[in-house]
This record gives sequence, C-alpha cells and structure tokens, in this order.
Amino acid sequence: MSDTVSPLAPKKYPKMPAIEGVRIATAEAGIKYKNRTDVLAMVFDEGTQAAGVFTRSKCPSAPVDLCRQNLAGGQARVLVVNSGNANAFTGKKGRETTSATAKAAAKAASCGEGEVFLASTGVIGEPLDAGRFTHLLSDMVRDAKAEFWTEAAKAIMTTDTYPKVATATVKLGGIDVTINGIAKGAGMIAPDMATMLSFVATDAPISAAVLQSLLSKGVGDTFNAVTVDSDTSTSDTLMLFATGAAARRGAPAITDVKDAQLVPFRRALNRILKSLALQVVRDGEGARKQVEVTVTGAKSARSAKRIALSIANSPLVKTAVAGEDANWGRVVMAVGKAGEPADRDRLSIWFGDNRLAFEGERDQNYSEEATSAYMKGEDIRIRADIGIGRGKATVWTCDLTKEYVAINGDYRS
Amino acid sequence: MSDTVSPLAPKKYPKMPAIEGVRIATAEAGIKYKNRTDVLAMVFDEGTQAAGVFTRSKCPSAPVDLCRQNLAGGQARVLVVNSGNANAFTGKKGRETTSATAKAAAKAASCGEGEVFLASTGVIGEPLDAGRFTHLLSDMVRDAKAEFWTEAAKAIMTTDTYPKVATATVKLGGIDVTINGIAKGAGMIAPDMATMLSFVATDAPISAAVLQSLLSKGVGDTFNAVTVDSDTSTSDTLMLFATGAAARRGAPAITDVKDAQLVPFRRALNRILKSLALQVVRDGEGARKQVEVTVTGAKSARSAKRIALSIANSPLVKTAVAGEDANWGRVVMAVGKAGEPADRDRLSIWFGDNRLAFEGERDQNYSEEATSAYMKGEDIRIRADIGIGRGKATVWTCDLTKEYVAINGDYRS
Repeated sequence: MSDTVSPLAPKKYPKMPAIEGVRIATAEAGIKYKNRTDVLAMVFDEGTQAAGVFTRSKCPSAPVDLCRQNLAGGQARVLVVNSGNANAFTGKKGRETTSATAKAAAKAASCGEGEVFLASTGVIGEPLDAGRFTHLLSDMVRDAKAEFWTEAAKAIMTTDTYPKVATATVKLGGIDVTINGIAKGAGMIAPDMATMLSFVATDAPISAAVLQSLLSKGVGDTFNAVTVDSDTSTSDTLMLFATGAAARRGAPAITDVKDAQLVPFRRALNRILKSLALQVVRDGEGARKQVEVTVTGAKSARSAKRIALSIANSPLVKTAVAGEDANWGRVVMAVGKAGEPADRDRLSIWFGDNRLAFEGERDQNYSEEATSAYMKGEDIRIRADIGIGRGKATVWTCDLTKEYVAINGDYRS
Repeated sequence: MSDTVSPLAPKKYPKMPAIEGVRIATAEAGIKYKNRTDVLAMVFDEGTQAAGVFTRSKCPSAPVDLCRQNLAGGQARVLVVNSGNANAFTGKKGRETTSATAKAAAKAASCGEGEVFLASTGVIGEPLDAGRFTHLLSDMVRDAKAEFWTEAAKAIMTTDTYPKVATATVKLGGIDVTINGIAKGAGMIAPDMATMLSFVATDAPISAAVLQSLLSKGVGDTFNAVTVDSDTSTSDTLMLFATGAAARRGAPAITDVKDAQLVPFRRALNRILKSLALQVVRDGEGARKQVEVTVTGAKSARSAKRIALSIANSPLVKTAVAGEDANWGRVVMAVGKAGEPADRDRLSIWFGDNRLAFEGERDQNYSEEATSAYMKGEDIRIRADIGIGRGKATVWTCDLTKEYVAINGDYRS
C-alpha cells in the first residue's frame, strides 16, 4: 500500500452490495505490513461452485498448486488470502504452510480441506509462517459479514495505491442476480495471465463447469490483455464463485454454457473482469497514463495480439508516452520486432485520432501541435494498422516512469 | 552523444592501428547534431571482401535493404554511415535517399553502386535528406586517412556516452594480420541481433563466404547475447570487411572456413565482437551496473539462452539490480515466465558466489551481509541452475535506472 494514490485512481468507488451466500472477514496478522489488514477470509454457503484461472509460470507458488488441486472438486466453502508474503519458491516449507492453513480453514468453516482455496501475494522466496494467522481463522469465519467487499479488497493490497472493486446486477431468467469482484496487482502484471489476485462471486446458480468456461473465455480480452511490465507473477490467481442463493428467489439453475438465459450474465461478468483488469493497469507501478494499444489489419487476431503486446511491452514506447512524446518511430520498431507478418510500406499509425504515419511513411498532413496536445492527456490510444489482413486486438498498459524504477528498486529492502 | 560519460566506460582506450587497405574520413553535416561529426566514410581497396548480419525486424530501414541487396556481390569499396537520422520508415523517400547516397558514394570512390554499403542511425520516421552530405563524399574519399578509427567511432554515436573500439593482431599462416572494430548503440539493443551499428575490418585475405560464416557464428555468443531494453532496432547492422592486403606480406588466402590456419583469427574476431558488444551494454542508456546472467542445467543450450534472456529482460530484475537488492525471488519469476522446461524444486540461484536459493527454497546458509556488499559492485553476476539438464548460456545486460526513463522520455523532442 503506497502513501500516494495513483493519479489514475477511480474518481469514485461503487457501493459494493452483499452477495447472498458470501460472508467476509479481514484481520491484521502483521505478516509484513503494520497497522493494516493483511488476511482475508471469504466464507461461502454450502454448495458454492468454483472455477479458476492461474499463472502459466513454470514456477508457481504453493497456494496455486493447492487451488489447482482442489478445483477438481468444483466446490468452495472458504477462501483465505494473505498479503505481504507470496509463499512462492518456499519449497517443502511452502507446502507445509498451505497444508496447515487449509487444515485450519477447514476446521474454522466446518468443511472438507478440498473445499478450501488459498492465495498469497507479496515477497517471493521468504518462508511464510502459517502460525501468524491460522489462529485467527475461527474468529474470522464466525464474525464474517456480508457487506465487507471493499475491506476485502484493501486486505489483499501490496504495492497497490487503491482497492479495486467492481459490481453489477443483471437478470438471470427474470430474477436479479449480483456479481461482485475484487482485485489486487500493480506490478509483475503480464499475460498469461495478467493477474495479480482477483476474486469474483455471484449468487447466481451456475455450475462449476459453466463458470470455468465463462472464466477461461472471459480472461482473453480482459486480464490476459493487460500488461504493466511484461513480468508474469508466480501467483496469478483469478477465481469465480457462485453460491446459487438466487435459486431460492427463483433464478434458474444454469448447467449449459450455451443457455440463452446466460447472455446478460456473461456480458456483465466480462465487464467486471475488464473493469478490474483496467483498474490494475491504472494502478501500474508509477503509472501516470493509461495506454490502449489497438492493432488492426494483422494477418490474424492472434498475430494482432502479439503485435499489440510487443508495442505495449516496449520500454521505449512506454517511456515515450511518459515523456508525452508521440514517438511513432518506436511503434514501428515494436511492430517490426514482434516477428509477426507485417509490411513496412503498408503500415499506418495513429495516436488518438491523429494519423502520424500512413502507408509506410510520415503522414504529410499530421499536426505536431494537435498531437502534442493529445499526448498531454491521461488516456492515450495508440493504433497500428498493419495493412495486410483483418486480424484485430486491443491490449492495455501504462507508461514507464521514473517512479516505476524507484518503487521496484527498493521494494524488498 | 551525452554530456555525462557512463560510469562503466572503459578506463582506457586502445590505440587503434591502421588496417592496410582501409582509409577513413569523417565530416560535420549537421543532420541533427551540431558541432560534432555525423558522417563517416570508410574506403576500401579494390577486391575487399564483405559479410554482414542485420536486424530481424520486419520493418527494416532502407539502408538495411540496400546492404542486404549489395552483399550478394560480396565486394565492398566504400561504406557511408550517418548518425542523427535512421532513414527508417521513410517509404519511397527513404529508398530515394539510399539510392542518391549510393550513387554519390560510387562516384566518389570510383566504383560500382553494388560495392557501396550504407548505414544510418538516429531518429526513425523522419525523412533523411541525402543532399545534406552527398556533396561531402568526394572530398572525404580523397582525404581519407588510415589511422582514424577512433574518430570513425565518434562520428556514428547517438545517445552513446563514449566511442566503442577494439583491436587485435594475430598470426595468419605465420604473418601478422590486424582486426579493428567500432560500434555504436546504447538503447534499442536486443537480440536478434543486438546491434546498433558495428563495423569490423581486417587486412587478412579471407573470402566473403568465409567471412560470412565467421560472422554468423560469432554473433551468437556476442552481439546476440546482449540486451539493454529488449527493443530491437530497425537498423541493426554488423559488417565485416577483409581487404586482403596482408597477402602481399605473405599471409595465406583463406577460402575454407575449416582451414586450421584460421583458428587464431576466429578467436580474435570473437573477442573483438564480444568486447564491442559488452561496450554497448556498459553504455546502456542510464546503466550503472553490468549484469552477466548465466543459466546452467537447462534442458538445452537454446532453452538456457531463452531463460537467460527472460531474466536479463525482466524490468523487475533490472530495477532490483539498480536498487542493489539481491531480489532472487524475481529471478524465480523470470525463470517461470520464460515458458521453458523448469522444475521449481530443483532451481538454485547465485548472485556472484553467494548462493541464495538451493533446490527450490532459500539457502539457509546465505549471508545477507555478504550479498548486500556484493550488490554494491559494478559488475553483477546472476546464475540460475535449472537442475534438469546440461544446457548452458550466458547473456549480458545492464540495470534499469531512472536515467533510462529520463533519457528515453525526451529523446525525440
């Protein structure tokens, strides 16, 4: 948690409603941070369905291993998250910690250990002592409250400068259902997948298999389309829980992802995933500007996304944006280095609505003045048209500032 | 050219001898910079053999196109290089510029246009007016001098803080032959290939085909093993010229790359390529420390190099080095994100001789004090042993400092 809030922080936060069947508690365990909450427990009613998407790192954290294993059951009763220590690269001790935490959480929530999910975020490689917080879990489960979502978002922050929350209420078979989500993450953010930690819950009665399908598809244009620094965490975790409590109010049970009744829910879920993903980008370490990179005219959508990420991850493009310099030559460089099919002499580039380059050379008519004024804004859109096909993709990143270097030059010490 | 010289600059420069058959001239054309040289002409005796390796960018500069085309002939008589403008992404105008320059250079050197080689470095996307310097070429060719190598290195600098030169004299069939090289490059440096511009010349009588073979193999562990910011230039050019003048002193003509007489030459050439490549890294924009990343125990050498580059390109690893923080957790992250075969529980990590992590967890015996002292040094060695095979690779990079952001935030303006 930083003292200075990102200038790109939301101007206002939504009031987060309760999700029937979900109760939340936070605590101060002093794992690393002092005078702030650093443990979250989310308690789910019996029968809650669960789905998850995790880091593709070849060196995942111990909690990620545990979540992957327990997800096979498809049911969740309690989620325990701590900040300050990632319990990653902690070897045998790391597994002992997740095992002890799962045992304590299962006891506190009166459920099986297979219905426990864990996540940890913070420093990598330092052993995490489960004893710092397992004794708190019974009281947390007992005292957990329904309307505590923003507090939940605060407890999982690390270098975040603001809590990230999103909510939506939509109809499912004519009945109102609610989706709430929280996220954390400010650096070490890159596909695949671009978390951080994020937890989304709904009272809709949707089966684990359908949840998994929605989530796996939903991350493509949201969490997997954002990058802060191209560095992928060992701990990336995005989970979706459905308590099914709305069934008591008449919401239909959804067991087929093709069910037409699911359409509004799917759209709302994707909006929430995108909102949370963009909140992460806008809290990118040291970020002063949000950058939206759109690539059109590529050979395929996959090729477009690779080119877009090449632009979004280029330190030279990102420092140019920080310097409010419409340096489209660096966009050419980033297109060229992506290794994807491209034709220099068909390439066109826009910053906002200003076309700077057209079919392989500087646009004769572009206004330096208008472009300079545009670059002073907070939201920068870069578009590159490759000119050889119909592939299209959009990704989001932030600028690369001296503050990023300062934040990451002395994080551990 | 920067006012402040990198703290990693060489403490002393070698005296660059003449290469028989090569004459050099520089001039001030005022293309972008004032009060400094920005055009280089290198004139070669008839029969000079040439080889080259170029950027793999899909959007190469117009001079790169011309060099690739002329290299088919294998012969060089004149090289013209300008700094201040890359003549990249300049469309039809760019080709007109290279064509006009080649014509003027051929006339000045009394040779065919196919024996002219060009390189340009500087801003991308701004048209380069050949008229700024073509009228200078006749006088330059006429007045070119043999012992002018350091001046040549100065004329091609952009954001470089010092000129980069290297020289070696070795025996070829019992006869002394000399190799000289110059390079420029400080940012936008990444494989493949990690130039910048570099020009190497020798008086040894070696055929174009052998030169090409030596160069293509030599870049692997030198220029293609360095990275400053993962950004690959549109203009990367490395050329090797052999005048053959030493044949008059009895040096044997080499037309087979397997010729045993070539061994000392090959070693010396590789030393020069490595010296120039490291000089580029040590002049990395904003660099305060050189970082050598060695990966051992990977599945293959190729896999080792990919993991090493993932570590060397990670902003989080590079900022940690800048902050003198032995944050080996970020090395774990970078190994994990490389996507190459790895086993978290067999991974070991060293900073210098300090083993911080052993077989998947923090080394119990490591000394925080010794490691902290080590991190204050100028040359940082990071080693990761993957523990699953015998693949090995070493790459070099520099730290990521606030100065990198400052330099690149206002380069164009």
